[in-house]
Amino acid sequence: MIRDMLGERDFAALKNTLREMNPVDIAEELEELSDADAVRVFRMLPKDTAADIFVELSSDTQQEIISKFKDAEIGKIVGDMFLDDAVDFIEEMPAGLVSRVLANISAEQRNLINQFLKYPENSAGSVMTIEYISFKEHLTVSAAFDKIRREGIDSETIYTCYVTDAGRHLLGDVSVRTLLLAEPDAKVGDIMNAAVISASTTDDREEIANEFRKYGLLTMPVVDNEKRLVGIVTFDDVMTIQEEEATEDFEIMAAMSPSDEPYLKTSVWVLTKNRVLWLLLLMLSATVTGTIISGFEDALATLPVLVAFIPMLMDTGGNAGSQSSTLIIRGMALEEVALADIFKVFWKEIRVSVLCGGALAVVNFGRILLMNHDAMLALTVSIALFATVVLAKSVGCLLPMGAKKLKLDPAVMASPVITTVVDAGALLLFFVIAKALLGV
Amino acid sequence: MIRDMLGERDFAALKNTLREMNPVDIAEELEELSDADAVRVFRMLPKDTAADIFVELSSDTQQEIISKFKDAEIGKIVGDMFLDDAVDFIEEMPAGLVSRVLANISAEQRNLINQFLKYPENSAGSVMTIEYISFKEHLTVSAAFDKIRREGIDSETIYTCYVTDAGRHLLGDVSVRTLLLAEPDAKVGDIMNAAVISASTTDDREEIANEFRKYGLLTMPVVDNEKRLVGIVTFDDVMTIQEEEATEDFEIMAAMSPSDEPYLKTSVWVLTKNRVLWLLLLMLSATVTGTIISGFEDALATLPVLVAFIPMLMDTGGNAGSQSSTLIIRGMALEEVALADIFKVFWKEIRVSVLCGGALAVVNFGRILLMNHDAMLALTVSIALFATVVLAKSVGCLLPMGAKKLKLDPAVMASPVITTVVDAGALLLFFVIAKALLGV
Repeated sequence: MIRDMLGERDFAALKNTLREMNPVDIAEELEELSDADAVRVFRMLPKDTAADIFVELSSDTQQEIISKFKDAEIGKIVGDMFLDDAVDFIEEMPAGLVSRVLANISAEQRNLINQFLKYPENSAGSVMTIEYISFKEHLTVSAAFDKIRREGIDSETIYTCYVTDAGRHLLGDVSVRTLLLAEPDAKVGDIMNAAVISASTTDDREEIANEFRKYGLLTMPVVDNEKRLVGIVTFDDVMTIQEEEATEDFEIMAAMSPSDEPYLKTSVWVLTKNRVLWLLLLMLSATVTGTIISGFEDALATLPVLVAFIPMLMDTGGNAGSQSSTLIIRGMALEEVALADIFKVFWKEIRVSVLCGGALAVVNFGRILLMNHDAMLALTVSIALFATVVLAKSVGCLLPMGAKKLKLDPAVMASPVITTVVDAGALLLFFVIAKALLGV
Repeated sequence: MIRDMLGERDFAALKNTLREMNPVDIAEELEELSDADAVRVFRMLPKDTAADIFVELSSDTQQEIISKFKDAEIGKIVGDMFLDDAVDFIEEMPAGLVSRVLANISAEQRNLINQFLKYPENSAGSVMTIEYISFKEHLTVSAAFDKIRREGIDSETIYTCYVTDAGRHLLGDVSVRTLLLAEPDAKVGDIMNAAVISASTTDDREEIANEFRKYGLLTMPVVDNEKRLVGIVTFDDVMTIQEEEATEDFEIMAAMSPSDEPYLKTSVWVLTKNRVLWLLLLMLSATVTGTIISGFEDALATLPVLVAFIPMLMDTGGNAGSQSSTLIIRGMALEEVALADIFKVFWKEIRVSVLCGGALAVVNFGRILLMNHDAMLALTVSIALFATVVLAKSVGCLLPMGAKKLKLDPAVMASPVITTVVDAGALLLFFVIAKALLGV
């Protein structure tokens, strides 16, 4: 739409359209324009929404626009951003642009940004913003509304306000809903909710997302070591955190280094870099299974048909194990499964694996009997299969919990690692059982 | 905490504690009590929060409590629920209890519930609620506040209100923030936002969650076929939807039937049922690879060392393929990758696979040369490895997109299926290359 209007040079209509459109949609269309056009359109934006649109752009486009901006324009746009957005933006810029940006904003904003850049990655401090409304206890409801009207336009959310003492220590929260239903001369300290759920600046953002979901929160206050209110996390950031954390787990579980960038915006080089090290590591680990096979070469020479069952045993073991590991990893991420549940989990998986392994073994026995007409062979493979499923599911639930115990990310113990570990076990079981039953 | 107070029979203190605690935390503790104790504590709850706590309980506990309740108690607790919670609750109850519940609520609520039960699973209609506030256009801001004060206590969220015409058609939305900043005698029709993002009752809940995240929404209105406002979806439900949809994808991608229940609350029987069919299907598919191996038994007899490389080739192919399929499946779930991008995706994966496959082949060549001192063998395995990685990544990106094209869930084309498909290709490539280069 924007591209067409630009082509027709209908700038008056374009300006009107830009005023009506949602900032997110404008940003999406700006991404499709050439750099020069993007900057041109950007300068036509209504001054009060330019910053909202800017923060929705990809960092490549942000960089293009900023590098073409005059100093005053930079100061204006960054000055209009919410603090958390400004910090996110600066973190993605190259050093040269960062110093130009910092040189053109107010000393106060510069100090705040520098302070926020120090919070550890993925901590509450790194995702919070400081645009919230706070009251002192003795304030009346009508004075509170005056304050909301005065400051509200600049606050990221006005619907939950916070009550603090003279030392900025958090005392409670009060929602606009409560304020609306209260008498105008009531004191906020009397109607506030003192049992407020808060986070510390160093808390992990995934834990915060879990609390938001559990309690259905709109915002959560963040306090420092001395319990002083320093910021808030809002629900819209939490939705993004939830998706990013899930995506991260999907990627780690498929043996990749996690990445924040959308697939289509990631270069071939970065995609390769994120994948190749894990593939190498797993490839080299898989040579252990090769050594096991070499150790049983005599058995395979005596009964070559055994080789044909290796892929099925390995694949079934891998699948059975990754079913278990996936449920446990996901359960721990959502805090539905705790380390203390390890015996409960193990006992459950043992019973499930006996049932699954039994069913598979019976079907497999029938299939081999039908196709190979060799009951002893069918029995050998089926016993090996049953043992493999039980082994795989045990490993599949224990490895992620062990990783958690060692303070590693449980997600690394997913399908690829389980497969590599279970392969070796499955082959050993297979050969030992074959030696015992078939005398090879 | 509740258990201890119950043990000490300190009921006055317990009642006080129940008044202070968060409903979610009370529900969590009720789950740990015996059924009789849970019912006893439940009857001590403040009347205005009992329904909030009830909807947080697991369906097992809900069933226990309801079955011990008198008719009047049932009517009261269900009558106090938000409509979407009442519908969720009734969907999980056995038929006998459902009819008892429906017999004890008002005719109006019964009709609404019956109507909501008809919306398709996972549709906007099935997750929306009807507790919203709407205004007519000509209403003044001060009259709007009066209406919010009157109805607000019963509305799931009051912060975004909706403007409709006489026929209940949606005209726009207006936030409490806008109302607070407006003149008391302004008309809501003049200050409302007409560019409101809405959903239709039949829209998929995953799409709605994506819109919430994209636009940072607090609520979204839901309209019927005639564009009449029939309900709203709120951000707290969307957080749950996001997690449930991600969990569903994790489960499908690990070859399981998806389930809503937390792991520890799922019985061994249900866990087995969710897993065993997929395992069986994949096990039977994996026998294709067995047939391929049998077809090349002569080659293996001539050069038994080849067998030792089969697990490494299969595992690496599986891992390389599931890296690609995971990124594409996740990208499509988040609407970052569309079907129209198929050529872009394929070309990207080809380049990545050439780089990854090349690196793996070089390392593998070195390793085999070092351990087996056979350059031709090393070359054979490395070429097969390279070809396997390219094949795996092509299959890994094309299968999920193909599934989407066929209107299947792309998540079924994850690791287990890719592994099964790629195994056969990897073995064929390996044997054909070995025949050509080693003359076996």
